[in-house]
Amino acid sequence: MVKLDKIYQAAFVLKEAARKTDLIYSEKLSGPSQIYLKTENLQVTGSFKLRGAYYKIHQLTEEQKAAGIVACSAGNHAQGVALAATRMGIRSVVCMPDGAPISKVEATKALGAEVKLVPGAYDDAYAQACRLRDETGATFIHPFDDEEVIAGQGTIGLEILDQLPDVDAIIVPIGGGGLVSGIACAVKQLNPNVKVYGVQAERAPSMYESVKAGEITALKSVATFADGIAVKRPGDLTFDIISKYVDEVVTVTEDEIATAILTLMEKQKVVAEGAGAVSVAAALFNKLPIEGKKVVCVVSGGNIDVNILSRVITRGLVTTGRNATLTIELEDKPGQLVGVSTIISDCGGNVVSVLHERSDANMAVASCFLKIGMETRDFTQIEEIKNALTEAGFKIVAQS
Amino acid sequence: MVKLDKIYQAAFVLKEAARKTDLIYSEKLSGPSQIYLKTENLQVTGSFKLRGAYYKIHQLTEEQKAAGIVACSAGNHAQGVALAATRMGIRSVVCMPDGAPISKVEATKALGAEVKLVPGAYDDAYAQACRLRDETGATFIHPFDDEEVIAGQGTIGLEILDQLPDVDAIIVPIGGGGLVSGIACAVKQLNPNVKVYGVQAERAPSMYESVKAGEITALKSVATFADGIAVKRPGDLTFDIISKYVDEVVTVTEDEIATAILTLMEKQKVVAEGAGAVSVAAALFNKLPIEGKKVVCVVSGGNIDVNILSRVITRGLVTTGRNATLTIELEDKPGQLVGVSTIISDCGGNVVSVLHERSDANMAVASCFLKIGMETRDFTQIEEIKNALTEAGFKIVAQS
Repeated sequence: MVKLDKIYQAAFVLKEAARKTDLIYSEKLSGPSQIYLKTENLQVTGSFKLRGAYYKIHQLTEEQKAAGIVACSAGNHAQGVALAATRMGIRSVVCMPDGAPISKVEATKALGAEVKLVPGAYDDAYAQACRLRDETGATFIHPFDDEEVIAGQGTIGLEILDQLPDVDAIIVPIGGGGLVSGIACAVKQLNPNVKVYGVQAERAPSMYESVKAGEITALKSVATFADGIAVKRPGDLTFDIISKYVDEVVTVTEDEIATAILTLMEKQKVVAEGAGAVSVAAALFNKLPIEGKKVVCVVSGGNIDVNILSRVITRGLVTTGRNATLTIELEDKPGQLVGVSTIISDCGGNVVSVLHERSDANMAVASCFLKIGMETRDFTQIEEIKNALTEAGFKIVAQS
Repeated sequence: MVKLDKIYQAAFVLKEAARKTDLIYSEKLSGPSQIYLKTENLQVTGSFKLRGAYYKIHQLTEEQKAAGIVACSAGNHAQGVALAATRMGIRSVVCMPDGAPISKVEATKALGAEVKLVPGAYDDAYAQACRLRDETGATFIHPFDDEEVIAGQGTIGLEILDQLPDVDAIIVPIGGGGLVSGIACAVKQLNPNVKVYGVQAERAPSMYESVKAGEITALKSVATFADGIAVKRPGDLTFDIISKYVDEVVTVTEDEIATAILTLMEKQKVVAEGAGAVSVAAALFNKLPIEGKKVVCVVSGGNIDVNILSRVITRGLVTTGRNATLTIELEDKPGQLVGVSTIISDCGGNVVSVLHERSDANMAVASCFLKIGMETRDFTQIEEIKNALTEAGFKIVAQS
């Protein structure tokens, strides 16, 4: 347990660097429960990571500060460390796997860190960071398994209790577990009645599996587009804290995460990254006993590559019935495209792409196929269009 | 001029309905000037319109309230009116053009208004609303040309002066002019040194043209994807206020608006609609004399259809060099696709779509063309790829 005095001290230190992010009541996400969003995606650097990194670095001795710091991260922690170090006039080196998104590499450099791109995965970058620490005497800033880092993240818990004193439950994303550990320490010491829940991606469930097994369980591989919480092995300190103070850990699927991101954009006008949206996904898809409760979902970050965001939107439009692509087998004769497009238009669909092809070896010689993409209102409208096409004699062979 | 006492009264009334939205300093948008965002896209209903509508309806007499209200809007005003009326237990009818986005129609219904879809454009819906007013004795709530509505929007000016007392300039989107009128009235009475600037879409410049001409100038048609500010004729009251108290009105292009939307998503993690992003576009593209100043950009709303948002992102990725499609003429022989894709991959580009075709009547019989879409880092990388392809003997015939 990280003591309250440390978390309050972190809160005082963070006044100079971090924003007290807004807690926004979401009428549109509320239903069986009242949903509030703690918008750490609107935090400086686009994620909560600044808090822990800043407080940790602030607490170093003058000697340690002079020797510089080194960190390892594929994303948000890198930016938090870079900004914190630069603000305090400390030299920082961040090792990143060479496959890290260019946008995150550039953002880290722009904040003043020296970035070393290490061939391989996170583990390789981590090994390189440790070598640098040993060679240069720099202090290694761990992304989550560190008492000061946890205290820094815990300031979010203090803010939530200040912004919504009668909160019933707080839902928190889990990667390594630093964020939920900090929040649990702050909240459970001040009001043990408040439930603290953790959420992981189903495809990166290291803490979920560890809590279930009652011991730290490392995963061989993780594969989620919520890269901010793709952690193979929980921290020792965070595992202990979570085992004792977090009420339940659940998982959500990739599609649930994508839907949560789209919902946050559409209903709340905020951009969340996959890791930041898992808390909302858990609430939306009823993974937790929160009916009738006042619930805070911590939206932990918003650093998502726009190319990926674009794909998430596309996917979300398909899974919510606002976009559909039909593949239709046609007789190869004039007027067929007119027929199909008239039906779609009459049903209120908006055609956005057309692929008309007759070279498929599997098709009868006198037929061809049409792949037609449409913007639609909902699944009901898609069914109407399909029924109208079928009635008119067109054969729908696939939908995506 | 709307008097301060009215605006302060509106602020008091709005405590029960509207959020005091966050003013967020944007390190990433700042450069020659310091940029702050007044995030009215995070307002309840997703836009500032709630403020004016709520205060206006609140001020009606009991008799007027009993007779109900009627309004006309294609979007944000509709939702503001609906929520305000429902909260106060008043019946509301909103006339919307039948081409209004389904999402806005559904949102308005969900907030408790009766929606009448009127065939035609905004003007037809407006005429229908006026008929309903005359027939039923309901009060018509004008979207901008009304003193109480303007006072409600003016509360944003009060909040900005409270949140950033030493602000130098405020940049505000203009459609009919209610928002900028309210803000100018509040700000100029409290501190006339603060500059207030207005921004319109170049393709819907009714207030810009009117101010230039020195008299109200109605446009025959407007065509911008910033539908929230696509207004053909300025208000009489708003034109007078803007002529006297707004320091300058400028315009921005569709591509500048799209880039601003993408920038807000990517750097600030917030979703703005076209109308809401014109203020940021004006700052980003140096339309105003704000160098060295503390500037607040009012992001007035975030109600953008996700299908449109998806297209804006795609367009923004192209205009910023993060996505490119090359059309390449190839000899029609084996191994050509391997050659092209190897070069792209070696240069660090990520292929996302391929169209390989040989049926174009304009092409030599022995050649075909390849249309290849890629995710890229920037324009420099695109040039590298193009140079490498050209050196290898491939002929690039088009880029989009």
